[in-house]
Amino acid sequence: MTRCETIWTAARLATMEGGRLKVIPDAVIAAQNGCITYVGSASEAPELTADRTVDCEGHLVTPGLIDCHTHLVFAGNRAAEHEMRRTGATYEEISRAGGGIRSTVAATRAASEDELVASALPRLDALIAEGATTVEVKSGYGLELETEMRILRAARRLADERPVTIRTTFLGAHALPAEFAGHADDYIDLVTQDMIPAVAAENLADAVDAFCENIGFSPAQTERVFEAAAAHGLPVKLHAEQLSDQKGASLAAVHGALSADHLEYLDDAGVAAMAKAGTVATLLPGAFYFMRETRKPPVAILREAGVPMALATDCNPGTSPLTSLLLAMNMGSVLFGLTVEECLAGVTCNAARALGMGENTGTLTAGKQCDMAIWNVGDPAELVHAMGTNPLHARIWRGR
Amino acid sequence: MTRCETIWTAARLATMEGGRLKVIPDAVIAAQNGCITYVGSASEAPELTADRTVDCEGHLVTPGLIDCHTHLVFAGNRAAEHEMRRTGATYEEISRAGGGIRSTVAATRAASEDELVASALPRLDALIAEGATTVEVKSGYGLELETEMRILRAARRLADERPVTIRTTFLGAHALPAEFAGHADDYIDLVTQDMIPAVAAENLADAVDAFCENIGFSPAQTERVFEAAAAHGLPVKLHAEQLSDQKGASLAAVHGALSADHLEYLDDAGVAAMAKAGTVATLLPGAFYFMRETRKPPVAILREAGVPMALATDCNPGTSPLTSLLLAMNMGSVLFGLTVEECLAGVTCNAARALGMGENTGTLTAGKQCDMAIWNVGDPAELVHAMGTNPLHARIWRGR
Ligand SMILES: [Zn+2]
Ligand SMILES: [Zn+2]
Repeated sequence: MTRCETIWTAARLATMEGGRLKVIPDAVIAAQNGCITYVGSASEAPELTADRTVDCEGHLVTPGLIDCHTHLVFAGNRAAEHEMRRTGATYEEISRAGGGIRSTVAATRAASEDELVASALPRLDALIAEGATTVEVKSGYGLELETEMRILRAARRLADERPVTIRTTFLGAHALPAEFAGHADDYIDLVTQDMIPAVAAENLADAVDAFCENIGFSPAQTERVFEAAAAHGLPVKLHAEQLSDQKGASLAAVHGALSADHLEYLDDAGVAAMAKAGTVATLLPGAFYFMRETRKPPVAILREAGVPMALATDCNPGTSPLTSLLLAMNMGSVLFGLTVEECLAGVTCNAARALGMGENTGTLTAGKQCDMAIWNVGDPAELVHAMGTNPLHARIWRGR
Repeated sequence: MTRCETIWTAARLATMEGGRLKVIPDAVIAAQNGCITYVGSASEAPELTADRTVDCEGHLVTPGLIDCHTHLVFAGNRAAEHEMRRTGATYEEISRAGGGIRSTVAATRAASEDELVASALPRLDALIAEGATTVEVKSGYGLELETEMRILRAARRLADERPVTIRTTFLGAHALPAEFAGHADDYIDLVTQDMIPAVAAENLADAVDAFCENIGFSPAQTERVFEAAAAHGLPVKLHAEQLSDQKGASLAAVHGALSADHLEYLDDAGVAAMAKAGTVATLLPGAFYFMRETRKPPVAILREAGVPMALATDCNPGTSPLTSLLLAMNMGSVLFGLTVEECLAGVTCNAARALGMGENTGTLTAGKQCDMAIWNVGDPAELVHAMGTNPLHARIWRGR
């Protein structure tokens, strides 16, 4: 007789183990101290007694959802430039009119830590309301030491405010701040010599990211960021091949990156490098949709090469104001042709892997955290098919 | 001193009168017996006393949202065919595999009125949760008299279950039922000689609609439906020019249609006919997105011609499983290039007009129903810009 805190019975279970969507019709999950002690079919379960038993009444149970790429903490909003973008204004014109990332940087620099937490919470709550149990948050709207640290502290504090796991990523190399115009290498000096050491000293980041692009930083500058991260024991990831082929994904793979993200312009060599390194391809269909892009990431080639694909919101004020992993799945399917199984793996096991958390969460497996979403749907495909409906029945984070 | 039931103070008001988005920063709305008795700036308001005063605390107040094109009442779900569609199966192949509209017709014919009400309520609730106060519901999954009547009765009953205005539309000419294969004219006989008279006799429909398309009904058959509707005093609307140019919108305009809907293949003559007749162009970007269409409705030409444009979800199980007017606005803007003002007019005043309800709702105007949405946003553009967030603060239907 195994004793545990809680058992959930009569679940239609999709563990997502191995990235596979295979439904076990009558399953049991047992949890103790926030972790799964047994998961599987009721008929094969050991005898279990629990302080609390929850009848899932045949509801579909999946791993809690994981948003592995967000810019959730920022100040201000960019709705005003929506109209300009829709009526054909270029990035340059929006920027000259006071819009673009610079407006977010100015607002974020002017915001207190409390204000950053308060403004991020509704966005976090929207993700949680749809079953998210882990959310990654990047810095990158400070572009100077104090504000970058403040964003990361605000992100860490979100985990005190809500029952959710927060993973932070330092993205100092997100854009070149105006005060360094024409001196990108000097800014990278600041990022690598001042910011990364300070962030690491305070343990404010779980990973380091950069934006490798014509309008971002060069591969050589990106590599300097990766080297500084490695020197401080931090894993890396990269915004790569979103607007052009910079060979960023290959560079990231060589540096053992957890993930390369966007990837619309990824070439075959990049796919091969990612497959070899085990780097996750994080696809961001919200940005693709919102920016009316036409070039899609090479999903068939990634699939063929066995590169794990994650899906995320890329939640940010300018290019992907998206706070719904259900919609990210729908867009992944409608716009990129992902299967239902790939969509679900993309927001569970592969997203966990993109955060270096594959051992802790992302599948319903004994020994992992008991992070689950319980859904009012029959067929898992309904989670991907519907748009604008939230069928979440209950969300369990660390067994509660 | 004018007495009324409720006054709302400190509203940031967008009345949407004349389709214009013009914010009055400090406004008052007064209601009595469910209707607006005063609306406008606080400084010009008469002296008002009320049983109840609600402080809007500077929140944005708009007309309640109106979804003027839905197929909300149906049984079954089509998530299973999602995968087939995504992996390139044709309509024919899906149909042969038991999917497509025929599967919805079979499930709907087998469902009781209670079951139809129960399955529609979550979809209706999703619309209401985002501020919808009026929702149109079409029949069209029965394709035989009894089921068509049952769908319309279920739709009428939704208004007893929730505080919302329901408008019903008879869409017997939605598709050719299998038992009439090769005999479309005989089915139109049934629609015009049996169904429309029976529906009218029980006052089950507020309008009559048809699907004029290669895979639907011909213009000549559509005209017979229009004539039968007119004989029973019912206004008409039309699914027109979605997949090809059938000159359906012109036909609809000649028959004084309230709206022509979809319109991706609308030509200049159709636009001119609609402008002349005052027929509303109802755009359905959810279907455009979900079906990966590439041909857009001629928004610039409609705008130039002064044709009022509405936006709706087209909520249906197969081609637009969308239950969010906020997303419909976002898609209208991102995919079709509508301005923020056009998006808001599309789900308020122009949607009311598409339902023949322009005198009753759709703008915040003295004498109309007090149907309002109160939003947690500063700039109205935020309603269109964000994806997946629901900023509704409160919803008022008929003054409550
Ligand atoms: Zn990003
Ligand atoms: Zn329709």
